[in-house]
Amino acid sequence: MKIGFIGLGKMGYPVAENILNAGHDLSVYNRTAAKADPLKDAGASVASNPAEAAAGDVVFTMPFSDDHMDEVMFGDGGILAAMKPGAIHVCMSTLSVVTADRITQAHTDAGHGYVAAPVMGRPEMAAAAKLFVLAAGNAKTIETVQPIFDVIGQRTFVLGDRPSQSNLIKLCLNFMAASAINSMGESMALARKCGIEPDAYLEVFTGTIFPGVVYQTYGKIIADENYDSPGADLDLGIKDVGQLIEAATAQTVPMPIASVLHNNFVMAKARGNADKDWAVVAKLMAENAGIE
Amino acid sequence: MKIGFIGLGKMGYPVAENILNAGHDLSVYNRTAAKADPLKDAGASVASNPAEAAAGDVVFTMPFSDDHMDEVMFGDGGILAAMKPGAIHVCMSTLSVVTADRITQAHTDAGHGYVAAPVMGRPEMAAAAKLFVLAAGNAKTIETVQPIFDVIGQRTFVLGDRPSQSNLIKLCLNFMAASAINSMGESMALARKCGIEPDAYLEVFTGTIFPGVVYQTYGKIIADENYDSPGADLDLGIKDVGQLIEAATAQTVPMPIASVLHNNFVMAKARGNADKDWAVVAKLMAENAGIE
Amino acid sequence: MKIGFIGLGKMGYPVAENILNAGHDLSVYNRTAAKADPLKDAGASVASNPAEAAAGDVVFTMPFSDDHMDEVMFGDGGILAAMKPGAIHVCMSTLSVVTADRITQAHTDAGHGYVAAPVMGRPEMAAAAKLFVLAAGNAKTIETVQPIFDVIGQRTFVLGDRPSQSNLIKLCLNFMAASAINSMGESMALARKCGIEPDAYLEVFTGTIFPGVVYQTYGKIIADENYDSPGADLDLGIKDVGQLIEAATAQTVPMPIASVLHNNFVMAKARGNADKDWAVVAKLMAENAGIE
Amino acid sequence: MKIGFIGLGKMGYPVAENILNAGHDLSVYNRTAAKADPLKDAGASVASNPAEAAAGDVVFTMPFSDDHMDEVMFGDGGILAAMKPGAIHVCMSTLSVVTADRITQAHTDAGHGYVAAPVMGRPEMAAAAKLFVLAAGNAKTIETVQPIFDVIGQRTFVLGDRPSQSNLIKLCLNFMAASAINSMGESMALARKCGIEPDAYLEVFTGTIFPGVVYQTYGKIIADENYDSPGADLDLGIKDVGQLIEAATAQTVPMPIASVLHNNFVMAKARGNADKDWAVVAKLMAENAGIE
Repeated sequence: MKIGFIGLGKMGYPVAENILNAGHDLSVYNRTAAKADPLKDAGASVASNPAEAAAGDVVFTMPFSDDHMDEVMFGDGGILAAMKPGAIHVCMSTLSVVTADRITQAHTDAGHGYVAAPVMGRPEMAAAAKLFVLAAGNAKTIETVQPIFDVIGQRTFVLGDRPSQSNLIKLCLNFMAASAINSMGESMALARKCGIEPDAYLEVFTGTIFPGVVYQTYGKIIADENYDSPGADLDLGIKDVGQLIEAATAQTVPMPIASVLHNNFVMAKARGNADKDWAVVAKLMAENAGIE
Repeated sequence: MKIGFIGLGKMGYPVAENILNAGHDLSVYNRTAAKADPLKDAGASVASNPAEAAAGDVVFTMPFSDDHMDEVMFGDGGILAAMKPGAIHVCMSTLSVVTADRITQAHTDAGHGYVAAPVMGRPEMAAAAKLFVLAAGNAKTIETVQPIFDVIGQRTFVLGDRPSQSNLIKLCLNFMAASAINSMGESMALARKCGIEPDAYLEVFTGTIFPGVVYQTYGKIIADENYDSPGADLDLGIKDVGQLIEAATAQTVPMPIASVLHNNFVMAKARGNADKDWAVVAKLMAENAGIE
Repeated sequence: MKIGFIGLGKMGYPVAENILNAGHDLSVYNRTAAKADPLKDAGASVASNPAEAAAGDVVFTMPFSDDHMDEVMFGDGGILAAMKPGAIHVCMSTLSVVTADRITQAHTDAGHGYVAAPVMGRPEMAAAAKLFVLAAGNAKTIETVQPIFDVIGQRTFVLGDRPSQSNLIKLCLNFMAASAINSMGESMALARKCGIEPDAYLEVFTGTIFPGVVYQTYGKIIADENYDSPGADLDLGIKDVGQLIEAATAQTVPMPIASVLHNNFVMAKARGNADKDWAVVAKLMAENAGIE
Repeated sequence: MKIGFIGLGKMGYPVAENILNAGHDLSVYNRTAAKADPLKDAGASVASNPAEAAAGDVVFTMPFSDDHMDEVMFGDGGILAAMKPGAIHVCMSTLSVVTADRITQAHTDAGHGYVAAPVMGRPEMAAAAKLFVLAAGNAKTIETVQPIFDVIGQRTFVLGDRPSQSNLIKLCLNFMAASAINSMGESMALARKCGIEPDAYLEVFTGTIFPGVVYQTYGKIIADENYDSPGADLDLGIKDVGQLIEAATAQTVPMPIASVLHNNFVMAKARGNADKDWAVVAKLMAENAGIE
């Protein structure tokens, strides 16, 4: 297949590389063109704008925000106008439900296929083709691109026939992670106030009923009070939980825990932690308990 | 060692059996005396009241509530008056911090040792000697009883030298479980309202970043809407989270997420689910989102 | 002065009438043209579109939503293109901060004056020229239109030189009202569960430390469970509190109480009360307490 | 009537004085005996313990806490044992529902009457006999003491035949006040962050839809950031809202707003404001918004 790939960031680059290595005819585009050089050396062609990359059978996009996606989709040299009838667009980023629904409508009107396929995993998992792919959209369209998902991820979850459904589930997972982080922070503040070592508490929950990457990674960040190398920062937390609440309000669904998380992230940012990891809410919980 | 064991419920019975099988001289007491019969056949002596069981070197208690513990401890025929100087009391139940501190003081005044050692695990884990023991109290006293912990559990976590610290951590773990349950419920209501199958969402989170018994067990209960065989019921959730908030207030620690959980459990009970599993809060979240 | 007035709804009509009665040269526009007839008979001219009404010195608008305002402002036959340099636009509706800031920028670019002047009061207060005017914008511009405010209201509060500041304060007042309503509902559910007559409780708080229209009006609605003639409905509550949270998030301000109110309104709507007064949240609080 | 009065604090003293001035035969008791001297000079007899003051027809108590009430009631020289059959006890303090129910039971068992009659108003209102009396208990018993209420207050609200009902309503009123304070604080933080003067916002809400002593008094304290002369302090807020939540939990009533207030008060105390007015939560809201 003739495939385009737009957005060669930390996650996008290894995904594109895996697609190329699988033998596909790949055209890549990135705003900072130099990032495409190694792929060019490996046989990819380099497009001069998104439209050029979108001229084939399938185009993947991995924008870093809803606004960026809008530009790639609808802007000058954007993909919507460039895609041929029947071509398929696969977007792998965490978009809002509103944006996803808007893009879906535009592609439907234009006779294109559209699959929302946000991924879970870190860059090293992307490099190892071990991502989890959350796919939603027309079943036949997903089938068509499934072989490509197979070369970039370890498993594809198909969530429904409306593309925004996978964006919603991605937001739900981020919410669940945020909830776990805030609950660890809230209870660890109490444990510390009662004279219990954070590491001792951490060992108990990760060593018994809360295994898994979220509790281990963030539990350790919180116990070590080591917030200076943000994976996700507070703005991302505010945006993700905010988009979840926006989607829930549109569906008339109350979100009492999400609201608490949102307020915690906003408070943490207002109190001077904008450049920290979003787990820094745990530091705020400790301060709110009078721990210096 | 001469050991007493009081409280032969679903958890207490297999624990007592493992202690007996390890070759200790065991005296058991249970309100419903018949439950002790098989242990008697296996060589245990049966005490006619708690005091009698507490006459040895160490006495274990596994009461089902703070009130029950008060009776066993301070009542007529209770253990406080019966224990000899230097004897050790180990309480394995989830007590409130207030009750634990009160018992600690009484034993200190009487020259006894006291270890709070609530356990994690289900009856089958107790039978297999695979419990997790959360111990707190005087370090030397814990050392003395550690060999007994080794025949009933797979791992002992030592959390501090104040017995109530392990009760607090047990409450914190129950809080973390309640938080996971409520977050699953809140996001699954949204997913359902958006037309996503509960099972599909369940597979995503348990199959990726949320492994572990809490997410698997309760996620399935929620996805199946199968709340009729309560492990823990709403009263237990209200009590546990309530005791956590009580302990936090005493330490001047705000608990915003715990408060949401407490209100959810209270609401679920008020709306007619007193006899359901505490995961039934997820059903309430769905109803609050207009799902029938 | 030559004045335009756009939007002859329940509030707009009596305001326009008072302006006309004060002797101004008035041009009115309303989508349903017939509503302008009595004003025409009284000497007003009737414009065929917003632009025509905006051709004078000052144009008042009273749209019923942000979208409507956008259309009146930026649409075909809208006022932005029609106003002459130095002309003043006064908008009297509760707009979001985002919309107000956007309109401000457009008028500044075009060399127009802009005053945001949302009002407080019911239609009968508008008819009696007893409204409260919350004004923000350039001080000199406000001075210019102050004589007109004087013929429609009993008092003008000047809140700042950025027009959106008065929109924010209007949203804050609606939040305070929503908070009072929810607090009455929450505590009245408890009082009822304890066997206290709603009227008895109502008399206590309105007769002592909570006088004023909000507590009296909504307290009576709640005590009487009489939600069928909505002044404000749940969608309005969801929108108003939602816009407040949106503005607060943009300013990095956490809003824990506003979040609870928002969730309550959403829940009340989801559970079948979309056409009720927003005080119906009190009925939900009662249901959540198990009161039928 | 032969009346006793126990507790001559800031509120109790003027109440006792008004009862004496109305011509009753009054016996007073206060822990610090000297406070009774002026009443003695005016004709009251001074009792040497609560029991002595409780020997007449009616005994009023105004303890400063539930624990103090327990002591006055059940302690050595307490009133329960001293009251004659058919005598009436009127307690004017804000007690918890649990304590009120316990006292009620004890008096019922002993054949005494019991009226809970917490009051609203400040010391100067007590001196001017302008208090509001919130009475609950047996209707005939209330009738008997009504003439005494008439010489100390401007109005008596009768709330039910279970004495604790008036304690509950007193807690509800304190909750409503706390809710108003927190809502002012939350919205004033936002207003300040948007560059609006606190005084300007204060004038708007007190000058329009939120008249009354709560909004005026606390609104000014918050706008002035003048928290150093506490009327009520944070511990009182934590206690009152905590007792309300305790009563609500016992009745299976969720209290989402009360929970937010409780957490805010706890946070404000933990962050170093234990000796400030409870309105200091507004300072915390401002800090949480990044305002120094």
